[in-house]
Amino acid sequence: MSRLLIKNAKALVGTYPVGVARVAGAEMARLPMIEDGWLLAEEGRITALGPMSEFPGVADWSDLTMIDASGRYVLPGWCDPHTHTVFAAPREEEFVDKIKGLSYQEIAARGGGILNSAMKLRAMDEEALFDQAKARLEGMMRMGTVAVEIKSGYGLTLESELKMLRVAKRLKASLPLQVRTTLLAAHALPPEFKEDRDGYVRLICEELIPQVAQEGLADFVDAFCEVNYFTVAEMERVLEAGAKHGLPGKVHVNQFTSLGGIQAAIRHGALSVDHLEVMDVADLEALAACPPDQVPMPTLLPSCSFFLRIPYAPARQLIDRGLPVVLASDHNPGSTPSGNLNLVLSLACIQLRMLPKEAIAALTMNAAAAMGLHHEAGSLTPGKRASLIITHAAPSLAYLPYAFGTDHIDTVIIDGKPIRTGAALR
Amino acid sequence: MSRLLIKNAKALVGTYPVGVARVAGAEMARLPMIEDGWLLAEEGRITALGPMSEFPGVADWSDLTMIDASGRYVLPGWCDPHTHTVFAAPREEEFVDKIKGLSYQEIAARGGGILNSAMKLRAMDEEALFDQAKARLEGMMRMGTVAVEIKSGYGLTLESELKMLRVAKRLKASLPLQVRTTLLAAHALPPEFKEDRDGYVRLICEELIPQVAQEGLADFVDAFCEVNYFTVAEMERVLEAGAKHGLPGKVHVNQFTSLGGIQAAIRHGALSVDHLEVMDVADLEALAACPPDQVPMPTLLPSCSFFLRIPYAPARQLIDRGLPVVLASDHNPGSTPSGNLNLVLSLACIQLRMLPKEAIAALTMNAAAAMGLHHEAGSLTPGKRASLIITHAAPSLAYLPYAFGTDHIDTVIIDGKPIRTGAALR
Repeated sequence: MSRLLIKNAKALVGTYPVGVARVAGAEMARLPMIEDGWLLAEEGRITALGPMSEFPGVADWSDLTMIDASGRYVLPGWCDPHTHTVFAAPREEEFVDKIKGLSYQEIAARGGGILNSAMKLRAMDEEALFDQAKARLEGMMRMGTVAVEIKSGYGLTLESELKMLRVAKRLKASLPLQVRTTLLAAHALPPEFKEDRDGYVRLICEELIPQVAQEGLADFVDAFCEVNYFTVAEMERVLEAGAKHGLPGKVHVNQFTSLGGIQAAIRHGALSVDHLEVMDVADLEALAACPPDQVPMPTLLPSCSFFLRIPYAPARQLIDRGLPVVLASDHNPGSTPSGNLNLVLSLACIQLRMLPKEAIAALTMNAAAAMGLHHEAGSLTPGKRASLIITHAAPSLAYLPYAFGTDHIDTVIIDGKPIRTGAALR
Repeated sequence: MSRLLIKNAKALVGTYPVGVARVAGAEMARLPMIEDGWLLAEEGRITALGPMSEFPGVADWSDLTMIDASGRYVLPGWCDPHTHTVFAAPREEEFVDKIKGLSYQEIAARGGGILNSAMKLRAMDEEALFDQAKARLEGMMRMGTVAVEIKSGYGLTLESELKMLRVAKRLKASLPLQVRTTLLAAHALPPEFKEDRDGYVRLICEELIPQVAQEGLADFVDAFCEVNYFTVAEMERVLEAGAKHGLPGKVHVNQFTSLGGIQAAIRHGALSVDHLEVMDVADLEALAACPPDQVPMPTLLPSCSFFLRIPYAPARQLIDRGLPVVLASDHNPGSTPSGNLNLVLSLACIQLRMLPKEAIAALTMNAAAAMGLHHEAGSLTPGKRASLIITHAAPSLAYLPYAFGTDHIDTVIIDGKPIRTGAALR
């Protein structure tokens, strides 16, 4: 039996009891921790943990990997419930065009934007797409990410959307991190349907969603509800079709405009509402009025705000209204070319004014919940996967977001196996 | 003879001709590059470089380290001409207090701010200070920094300021990166002189500066010219005393207020004017009116703006007026707990709207110039130190700042010797 024992951790962080599915409001800052702790994993699962003062000792030393984590924090691995990490090419040329002062319209006229990614993705074969995304995910794993959601949405044809999801499914089978997939065909209107919006939404609802569900290619459906993208009514059609096929919604709402997408997501029982950079009081109140276990998880993407220089989502207002907050990377080639959740942790504290403990809860327990993985990941809890981060020696937990841009990770373990080995394991 | 040969570099970046001391205005975007290049270093110095099409071959293979840099960029190592990286302790507790909404006044009342660092530094022995700063600098070297300026300014007594500079001098002797040191006794008014500003400035000018100069402990003098810190007139006294002892000025001006510090720095022939978050038209015009080779190097610190959420310095206005721009980290425990210049590169492009090539010039050639090291560092030029960065394979140079928060560095070489070894060297 393969076993891993961590001893003398400065603290085990996020030791939620069995059964906690999400944390909200003031509860977020009460991140449970065990100082000077030990943790045992067997066959890839956490089986026991506690303070060193109550360490029962080890009777059987066979097949046991021992880690002395003196001075180091042990955290649940980061969960990333909003990414677009399967894509054909980065778009740094648009980044330079923007610095030079080109408008979004001019960049779009040069073939930029989501449709740029779509044209490149359609032209690329599955193998090349897979290799690229695999390298990106390996980089993210080294930065502590142990579970990730991946969206389609750069195909925008039946075949290309299926291609993206098949690549994501292969990634799930090939890599140790957990992968959840989302059909985001309603990401932008493809040029072929420029004069037939309704036809594209019908293609999504009547052909894509049924086929994706039948082949088991996606766990969720998504739509970009925004001016010049999809209307609230169109998003609702996608959510309805998803629900009919057992695929809950995780939706892009309120990035640039408050259109009523949040209220629609609530009506349709969406699992998460993502972006939320632009929120009016009615939006906040609609979320606050939901029964606590049914609030669509508010999922904030500060790296996107940072890169686009758009407003940051009102994390404090959400927490202060008793709501849960989730953090994710939004990794994608247009608005967020970074999958580094350690930097998201710093952005959350520096720019969203979240407390370090709130931000850690948002990147672990709540992030797992926002992709339906709260039974598997997001906390150091017996029964969950032994997927965790061991930091370098650090003076305090708050030091991690504070010393931004610094690599704090020594070792990353997924399902009980080291995928990045630092000094703690040597 | 110890030699290093790099072949097949995707590009050698920053191949300025011999004799270039700084670049300004539109010249900054014309970063010279050699595509598909080779570079030879002997005894720690660059001795030759060129395109592979003109590679003369190697006659003598003895004692030669060969690197195939296919797909990789080779850049001059980053230079960091503004840091406070010798300090006694991080101050993440103040960071949390600020998130909780405490004002600067309340934090100061709790013993926070520069005086917090001063009290801790005075109590710490040289050995502990040295060990901490050494670990920080080793981390910065791994992130590509090959030359660094270090300021005093957390001592604020004769003995403690000397202690800081002695630690910096030991760091210089112990580490391969180049170190320049700056006396910043005029960083904050120490409590002992609360009622005697003039007495403290006299201590600096009449005792500290002469002793520092005599012991060769500093290369420059600095003063924090700001409301509640030091006046323009007090800064001028420091600059005058520095000049008298052969120590040029590098000064903190215009962080929160435009007080005329830039004009004073120009009058006193300062080497650099640092911060510049708050610039009025007269400030810009005063700089633009200087003879090009005498402009005090405008040194911008975007990580500080990011962490404090204060305005970013007007990089575009400086460049568009034909001025040089320098970038630095400002690494310090209060306002910039990060020494990562790769993130500064991204911040410069994303937030300051600098073009990738401008930002690279600002972090290399101009950054070296801002600490008087342009003969030694800052470009891939024969005769300069072979201190350089080899990136991971990257699709373009713009990809480096664009994919922010991503570690792009494969190998770091200082004086011809690898101090971080990646795949390129295996």
